[in-house]
Amino acid sequence: VSAGRPLEVAIVLYDGMTTLDAVGPMEVLRFLPGVRLSLVAEGLAPVLTDTGVLALTPTATFDDLRHSDVIVVPGGPGTAEALRSPLIEWLRELHPATRWTTSVCSGALLLAAAGLLQGATAATHFAVREHLRAFGARPTTRRVVIDRGRHIVTAAGVSAGIDMALHVVELLTDALTVDAIRLLLEYAPQPPGHGGTLESAPADVIARAVELGRPHGAIPADWS
Amino acid sequence: VSAGRPLEVAIVLYDGMTTLDAVGPMEVLRFLPGVRLSLVAEGLAPVLTDTGVLALTPTATFDDLRHSDVIVVPGGPGTAEALRSPLIEWLRELHPATRWTTSVCSGALLLAAAGLLQGATAATHFAVREHLRAFGARPTTRRVVIDRGRHIVTAAGVSAGIDMALHVVELLTDALTVDAIRLLLEYAPQPPGHGGTLESAPADVIARAVELGRPHGAIPADWS
Repeated sequence: VSAGRPLEVAIVLYDGMTTLDAVGPMEVLRFLPGVRLSLVAEGLAPVLTDTGVLALTPTATFDDLRHSDVIVVPGGPGTAEALRSPLIEWLRELHPATRWTTSVCSGALLLAAAGLLQGATAATHFAVREHLRAFGARPTTRRVVIDRGRHIVTAAGVSAGIDMALHVVELLTDALTVDAIRLLLEYAPQPPGHGGTLESAPADVIARAVELGRPHGAIPADWS
Repeated sequence: VSAGRPLEVAIVLYDGMTTLDAVGPMEVLRFLPGVRLSLVAEGLAPVLTDTGVLALTPTATFDDLRHSDVIVVPGGPGTAEALRSPLIEWLRELHPATRWTTSVCSGALLLAAAGLLQGATAATHFAVREHLRAFGARPTTRRVVIDRGRHIVTAAGVSAGIDMALHVVELLTDALTVDAIRLLLEYAPQPPGHGGTLESAPADVIARAVELGRPHGAIPADWS
């Protein structure tokens, strides 16, 4: 983060995206010194998230926004359609000049479709790990993967975007700033219950997650 | 959560709110069986969050939505203005018939202004604890406070809303559902850095948080 010109952070929006995938990183990155935040989409019409009710309003289009220091690509059930959208070409074009191109959840599939994860180890939501393999990437069970060579950071599902963004803050600034932003967000998690990973989940929890998540598209139909 | 009629969950929106305060609980509660999610505000015009760029579109107005099983009241720098808005009267009117009325961050001040926290212990963002005291409530350093008598759950700052909502899931359903939603969101936090609470933060972290947060209204001008 240098004095003088702003640090451009672009959060990608598309129909059917998962809100927290974008909002988690946004809430962390917006406190970076000198940041200029954009919400970028194919057009300027409000984008309908996977809740079916919450709409988010973009501030820039892919045609208008031709450079960003940091790009955040969220996931969600809308990923399948976004794979065939102008977002992919935009990612391919802008990635070489970013400082960090990042994804959350199934957003990794969009980076992969843009050819950015060939042969790379990448994090994604547990339910789409095999989809990532189809694009030539190696899925991992890790929560956040920092690939310095490719200047790409990928995160696991939904809530992992908060942790991912804190890593990006550490990469761009220092440990003091990470702790300061954690304090501003009071990010000292104490959730009830257990787990939060496929590897730690007993069969009844997985079955219940599929039952609750599938109607919302959170678990793809082909996953078992 | 009973079969038959939907479980109404209303997320309150207002100008200057903090996005994650609303979106964290929304992402958890939307997986509840039979849920019907509303985004409720004074009018139907998009609400501008404290980012200054992200706008959220309401689905219902306070005049239209006259009952909700669960209400989530976010915080943010806009709280000061929301204190003098029709939201307060709406909270006073709807609270008696809710199952759980909840707040995140400085949203607790809005519950307090509606007279719902007289003599109650409540969680809020560290930077507005003394404001809460001015409304006759007792601020605590706890992350989530469940007040069964008042059917109110309050949470500390921003990210605490995710944990709060998981407690509400536990109150409305069962431990299996909590763990299933944690799995869907891959909520197994592993943030870099330290702390995330005022009590654990050394002076240099607090100073840096004030420096980064104050320009965004995340730390009120009167806090020191």
